[in-house]
Amino acid sequence: MSMSHLLSIEDLDRAAIERIVSQAERFAEVADREIKKVPALRGRMVLNLFYESSTRTRSSFELAAKRLSADVVNFAAGGSSVEKGESLKDTVLTLSAHRPDVIVIRTPWVGSAELVSRWCNAAVVNAGDGKHEHPTQALLDVYTLRRRLGALDGMQVWIVGDVAHSRVARSNIIALQRMGAKVTVAGPPTLIPRDIEAMGCEVRYTLQEMHRADVVYALRMQLERMTDSLVPSRREYAAWYQINSRRLRPRQLLMHPGPVNRGVELAGEIVESPRSLIAAQVEAGVVVRMAVLYELLSGARPAEKPSLRPAPEPQPA
Amino acid sequence: MSMSHLLSIEDLDRAAIERIVSQAERFAEVADREIKKVPALRGRMVLNLFYESSTRTRSSFELAAKRLSADVVNFAAGGSSVEKGESLKDTVLTLSAHRPDVIVIRTPWVGSAELVSRWCNAAVVNAGDGKHEHPTQALLDVYTLRRRLGALDGMQVWIVGDVAHSRVARSNIIALQRMGAKVTVAGPPTLIPRDIEAMGCEVRYTLQEMHRADVVYALRMQLERMTDSLVPSRREYAAWYQINSRRLRPRQLLMHPGPVNRGVELAGEIVESPRSLIAAQVEAGVVVRMAVLYELLSGARPAEKPSLRPAPEPQPA
Amino acid sequence: MSMSHLLSIEDLDRAAIERIVSQAERFAEVADREIKKVPALRGRMVLNLFYESSTRTRSSFELAAKRLSADVVNFAAGGSSVEKGESLKDTVLTLSAHRPDVIVIRTPWVGSAELVSRWCNAAVVNAGDGKHEHPTQALLDVYTLRRRLGALDGMQVWIVGDVAHSRVARSNIIALQRMGAKVTVAGPPTLIPRDIEAMGCEVRYTLQEMHRADVVYALRMQLERMTDSLVPSRREYAAWYQINSRRLRPRQLLMHPGPVNRGVELAGEIVESPRSLIAAQVEAGVVVRMAVLYELLSGARPAEKPSLRPAPEPQPA
Repeated sequence: MSMSHLLSIEDLDRAAIERIVSQAERFAEVADREIKKVPALRGRMVLNLFYESSTRTRSSFELAAKRLSADVVNFAAGGSSVEKGESLKDTVLTLSAHRPDVIVIRTPWVGSAELVSRWCNAAVVNAGDGKHEHPTQALLDVYTLRRRLGALDGMQVWIVGDVAHSRVARSNIIALQRMGAKVTVAGPPTLIPRDIEAMGCEVRYTLQEMHRADVVYALRMQLERMTDSLVPSRREYAAWYQINSRRLRPRQLLMHPGPVNRGVELAGEIVESPRSLIAAQVEAGVVVRMAVLYELLSGARPAEKPSLRPAPEPQPA
Repeated sequence: MSMSHLLSIEDLDRAAIERIVSQAERFAEVADREIKKVPALRGRMVLNLFYESSTRTRSSFELAAKRLSADVVNFAAGGSSVEKGESLKDTVLTLSAHRPDVIVIRTPWVGSAELVSRWCNAAVVNAGDGKHEHPTQALLDVYTLRRRLGALDGMQVWIVGDVAHSRVARSNIIALQRMGAKVTVAGPPTLIPRDIEAMGCEVRYTLQEMHRADVVYALRMQLERMTDSLVPSRREYAAWYQINSRRLRPRQLLMHPGPVNRGVELAGEIVESPRSLIAAQVEAGVVVRMAVLYELLSGARPAEKPSLRPAPEPQPA
Repeated sequence: MSMSHLLSIEDLDRAAIERIVSQAERFAEVADREIKKVPALRGRMVLNLFYESSTRTRSSFELAAKRLSADVVNFAAGGSSVEKGESLKDTVLTLSAHRPDVIVIRTPWVGSAELVSRWCNAAVVNAGDGKHEHPTQALLDVYTLRRRLGALDGMQVWIVGDVAHSRVARSNIIALQRMGAKVTVAGPPTLIPRDIEAMGCEVRYTLQEMHRADVVYALRMQLERMTDSLVPSRREYAAWYQINSRRLRPRQLLMHPGPVNRGVELAGEIVESPRSLIAAQVEAGVVVRMAVLYELLSGARPAEKPSLRPAPEPQPA
């Protein structure tokens, strides 16, 4: 029942997604305490291996691990043998020989997390492999929506923007559908993959019917797309596809994986509006990643529930 | 009585400064032990967010937190979403959603720590905001002087060099005066702000009367000033304002916030002389920052004294 | 009997090398457990100060320290005051004032670790000082060979490649000879130092007699050598000195300090062959560095054996 890796949201059926999300809800209770640390993974080692820059993903994995009392070692591609031209495989074999319990990996290369899982004994978590997948993002989005809406069955979710280059879009299309939601993707034809309907979602090239959505999920617009001729200009993109207070109805919820380009895919005024779940998504990052790490490392001891007893309090002198 | 943030030394009256310094003295006893770690902040999370490079400040906050058994997560602007053009506000909102107990922040922007404190629930410590303030530096300087001199009342302190661009100068002028010292600033007219007398200090453009000082506090000369025409040349600056063994009298104490440009603002021979407090200042960094973190996080439990019991010793197998 | 620093393998006699290797073997038993952490150095602080990029060395020291329950603070030269032009001495004096128990240092400068040990009270570990020495690499190589072969007395070890620029070669020549092995160095005349025979090893400029070796230790070929006219070309180097499945006999063992340039000093097919000890070398890194840290910090308590009791398990809620 328990996972050995988290490489793709495809590997998780609805029951597995629900189990992780429920575990995250239990950890969320801990996050409301003054002392947010529990001893569940004491003595375990989590290795963050990041070949792309990241604020929220790397930090939320680091915090998740530390809140579970695990130790963390960080690798950024910049300050390591990667500079000497070492291959991903040799780096992973090296680090794997140090016997971490988990390797959290982000790279610009599709399929890298899958490869890494074959090269090492550690549990591997895909924290983004190129434009392929970002499963913990999808899990935290499901968590965030379920906390707000109860259940996702029958919900209409519109994913808007650069679907073609978005690992967030791919992972969310799968996860949201498994949880019973109906997904529509919308954006300029140059940024919608031709075969996307095979994933079971509808496609729109304008936002005219977006009023049917219960949830609007705006994707980050990579600014480099503006220069590679896929999008005519920032201004024109915003004119057609920006989510703003005119286009978003009061009953509709707004999501975004961050970091936001204010004035491009989102108008600044709605980022912190009451219908925005963006802050809730970020907050979900730590507890969902705690649940993933716990799920991966408690496999050997399946009967056990995580101890939510606080880490020891300061004792009197 | 307890602080919720440390944004500016202006927010601390003499009693608050003395309370922190006294707490630092208690922590200094711990620093003399073989095991220098106490469990006072076990389970707490400190986030270091540094937009400028730093050896001593970042490291001393990290060590201070770890000596108190807190967990630390570091952010350098380089390896994060800052590279993707994320704004300070979005970065802070993101990190704040991870619920750190303290955010220690250094940036090149005046007023940034104050802004950050409005955006998040964490206790915020200003570790330098542009040329505005660096309050923990002033606290450790007061601590260092008080350990050497007992009390600062009536002491004459000369702050020499690039006062205009120095957050250290600004924070120290305020802190030293609150502790009863008299402050004179001295340096080339291009590097002394016109309105500095409004802060209550005297101004000199030569070192002729420096023999009146009990303490000479040399500021770091930013080498980039040499190229922006505020200073004619390194050699000329040194000729007029360098503190050397000829200008510094035997009974005068020497301070400097580091890192020293040997041969510019200080002659190499006096950096490690007996009248130099420079090593003591660095050493003060950890215990003073322990006291600041402790002050901020023990606010909810004001009656309690920190446990100075050592962290548990290795037990027999 | 115990060491105060580990600056050079020259400082260790055979008994000291054997003591560290035996200690590493005890720690290797811990590494086979599910929980790999022991409380031996709880409350101690290890500072990693790296002026050169590194994957395996920095990470293995960090893991070694954390597996012993010590705290770790990392410094990469990039993100620190080094950018402001601070000298090594001032950086070390600063960090030393923070009272770490151990400073692990890597720099491109011969003799830097020795200098650092004079400037501070911490125990200093040389993790590579230019082309001079890399003693923990030699210790882990001795450990790896001893695990495979039992004893090294009388063994023939060939060290092949760029001996002139290799700290690994220098440290290994000394360590292997002290353990009773006979060392031959082989490579192009431009990459073999003229006075190397004074170290007690034989010199060959071809691999014709390499069949006599029990162990072949290939050195990393710095790719920059190709451009400085010491080596005619990558292709020509490989033609003469590459270790491949034709040149390496089935009974011969293969070693390499990593990271490997596949297709240059080693043919890709033999890196993971059964005669390759490369993965074992990497794995040895953590336990040997645990033994070094333990040796350095248990000096004050020489009678004591390290507690191999696991760190506390998660307790029931």
